[in-house]
Formats: sequence, structure tokens, C-alpha cells
Amino acid sequence: MTRKLVLLRHGQSQWNLDNRFTGWVDVDITEQGRQEAVKAGELMREEGLLFDVAHTSVLRRAIRTMYTALDVMDQMWLPVHKTWRLNERHYGALQGLDKAETTAKHGEAQVKIWRRSYDIPPPPLDEHDGGHPRYDRRYRRLDAAVLPATESLKTTLDRVLPYWHDAIAPQLKAGQTVLVTAHGNSLRALYKYLNHVSDKDIIDLNIPTGIPLLFELREDLSVHAHRYLGDAEAAKKAAEAVANQAKTRG
Amino acid sequence: MTRKLVLLRHGQSQWNLDNRFTGWVDVDITEQGRQEAVKAGELMREEGLLFDVAHTSVLRRAIRTMYTALDVMDQMWLPVHKTWRLNERHYGALQGLDKAETTAKHGEAQVKIWRRSYDIPPPPLDEHDGGHPRYDRRYRRLDAAVLPATESLKTTLDRVLPYWHDAIAPQLKAGQTVLVTAHGNSLRALYKYLNHVSDKDIIDLNIPTGIPLLFELREDLSVHAHRYLGDAEAAKKAAEAVANQAKTRG
Repeated sequence: MTRKLVLLRHGQSQWNLDNRFTGWVDVDITEQGRQEAVKAGELMREEGLLFDVAHTSVLRRAIRTMYTALDVMDQMWLPVHKTWRLNERHYGALQGLDKAETTAKHGEAQVKIWRRSYDIPPPPLDEHDGGHPRYDRRYRRLDAAVLPATESLKTTLDRVLPYWHDAIAPQLKAGQTVLVTAHGNSLRALYKYLNHVSDKDIIDLNIPTGIPLLFELREDLSVHAHRYLGDAEAAKKAAEAVANQAKTRG
Repeated sequence: MTRKLVLLRHGQSQWNLDNRFTGWVDVDITEQGRQEAVKAGELMREEGLLFDVAHTSVLRRAIRTMYTALDVMDQMWLPVHKTWRLNERHYGALQGLDKAETTAKHGEAQVKIWRRSYDIPPPPLDEHDGGHPRYDRRYRRLDAAVLPATESLKTTLDRVLPYWHDAIAPQLKAGQTVLVTAHGNSLRALYKYLNHVSDKDIIDLNIPTGIPLLFELREDLSVHAHRYLGDAEAAKKAAEAVANQAKTRG
């Protein structure tokens, strides 16, 4: 019997809409984002998914997407675990900037490197910057040395995987059905790990917002199958839209 | 330094409005109930409360009240633990009935006993009744022997206290600030325990919906002070309204 895992990327956020780098900045979802979350809940309900436990980040756009979807599924009572390890990739000093500002500040060539590389992070946020996670109460119990001031996709994966191994994988191995609601890059990290995607190929992999991605895993958690719920064409289009946004956005 | 604990009763539910016994039936809050939750969040924000952790029941009227209040306080990222031990008192075979039906079925004298006694529960729900908690997936991991088919205030307190001792009290002793969002009777049980209220006096104690009750506790968790946040007169009126509802409702 396969184990079921669903990865769900949060719906459109205000800064997705404004075309700004978001990272760990705690912006909310838009009304369209909320509707995406409702639709995601409907797709999971139609699939007959009965979850045992759910995981999300400590950022409200993922948390609200999770609650909204669970509400639609009548599964609000599920245990929900929130962890910084499922946060979006930290975008360093780029956080809050839009594409034009970023190009003006750092040059086109450099922005392309941050955009297209697996392991080169943007410049770090100054540790005296009020937006540094060390000044945010939600991270107060973490050693400052653990808190990123910038991340590449590689270092994002490095901090997501311990949570996978310690929290999520044991639940799946115990036969539980698990929902993970998170962000473009923390979910790409999990996707890369599960599907053995190369460092090079993961760059072009885009996970659409608000469309549940269902994995069926074998007992050893190797992937038996995976697919987006609902209309396959809609999922493809949504992924392409994300890819195009990434092209103009870095 | 005192430890802070806030008890918050969920806002008006649909069956509060319809004057029906609710118990473990998972009805939602009304729009008025949601507004009460927003107001509760505002009162806690104005008080400057920075919580470390939150607890609620597995019933949506308490969960939604919690989320709504945390949202207003910008503390959605807090860990929230959901437990059946904070559920409302199980009203047995009375669940779903309104006052008139109940009186017609069981007689005025009998209804008064259930309404006014500390330790006499209503007749139990038949174990083959589809509404019995044993058929509800959220309780699937609990031994059927633990699941109530009816409860008095006394047996409610008996199942609330283990959670107090094992989960909430250790956090308070460690200096954490704790929010508990639950129900009229599970909160009365905590109130009784903390304030050493007698079996007789607890009958007349009513906790208003949507008004945060702030306890300041000493290191040994004895009560240093407790008060409702916001307008004292409003809290008093709300408690009286609840008391009057209880008089007509049992």
C-alpha cells in the first residue's frame, strides 16, 4: 500500500502580484490567492484525501493557504505543525526589491546568476537591518548562527531536509497521509530530493501555486507516482505562468 | 515575575443562536461570533500580549476563533495545539435538541437537574448513534473507552485536567505566555481548578464569549490576579447574557 503526500504551494501573494522578491518577508495572500486555496481544498476533497497531519512554514501566506484548504475539506481539526524550515528561500538583500530596482542596483549579468544558479545566493541582508530574522520574535529560540541572511536553492534544501527526515518521513513511514503547504523553493527542494532531480534540471522545474501535487510513495518512501490534482492542462499552464514570471523576476 | 495565561471562549456559534445543545457537534461560529473573535484579538493586541504557544479543542468554533484572534494579533505563526481534552462538555442524548424539545422529552424537573447539577450527566448518546464520537475520524486514535457518550461538568473537568498538567502547566512554569481558546464548560473547568471554586459555586459561574480572561500566575501557578480585558462593564453584561441564556437553555 502506498503512502500519500501532498505538496501545496501557497496562492498568489501581494508581492507575487507586485513582482517583488519576497523571501522571508511575511506578506499575505491576495483575494485571488485565497480563491486558489479554496480550489485546492476542493480538489483534495474530490480526491477523497483524508489527512492525518499537516505541515507548513511560519509565514502567513502558507499558513492561511493551509487553513483555508483544510476548512474546505472539513479537516480543520488536524494537527498542523509550523516550522521555519519550510519557509521560502531567503532572498537576502534582494527582499522587497522589484526586478527593475534589482537590475539597476546589481546589473543584468549578476541578476541572471542569482536567478539561474543552484548554489549562488544573493548578497546577504545586513545583520543590522531591521528585516533580519534575528529581530523577528518568531525565530527567537533559534541560534543566530542558524538563521540565514541569504540562501541559494542549495542551502534552502540543506535546511529543509532535516525537517523532512525528522518530522515528515517518519509519519509517512508509519502510514500516515501528510499535507505540506509551503513555498516555491522549499517545495522545489522536497521535489528535487524525492525525484532525484539534478542540480541543473531543478532550475527549470516550476511548481504552480494552489494546485495540490500528490505523491504516492512506496514503503521506503521512493516515488511510485506523482501528479497534479484536477485538470492536467490547468496545472501545466499554471507552471508555465510561474516559469514566465521567474524569467522576468529572477 | 508572573506568568500569563489567557482563557478565551469561542464567539457565538450557530447553535448558540438557535438555542440548541451543542456539546461535541462541530457547528461553526456565526458572523457575529467571528466579529467577537476579531474584537478579542484587538483586546489582546492592545494589552501587548506576546504569546509563546496556543491551545484549542478539535472543534471548529474554537479553532476558527483562535485563528481569527491570532491573525488580528499578527501571531499566526505561533504553535497551536489541538486536543479533544479541551472540547465542550459532551451533552449526551441532548445534543441537537432545543429547550422546548428537551422539556417535552424529559420533563421540566429532570432538565433542571441536568442544568443545575455539578455531577449528573444527561442520558448518554446511544453507541450506535452516528453522532457518537467513535464514528468521527478525529477521535480514531483514542480508545473507545475514553470517548464520552455524555458528560457532567465534573467529568469534563476530569478529562481537561490531565491536559492542563501535562501540556499547559509545564509551559507556564517555563515562563511561557499561553493562550487557551475553548468552550464554556472546558474553560469553567480550568477556572474552577485555578480559583479553587467549590462544586456548588461553579454552577453560577459564567464565562462570556469572546472576551479574553487574563490570569497572572505565580511561579507555582497559584493565581495572583485575573481580569477580563477591555471594558469591565461589557464583560459583566456578557456574562449575564450567558447566564440568562443558560436559564432558558439548561
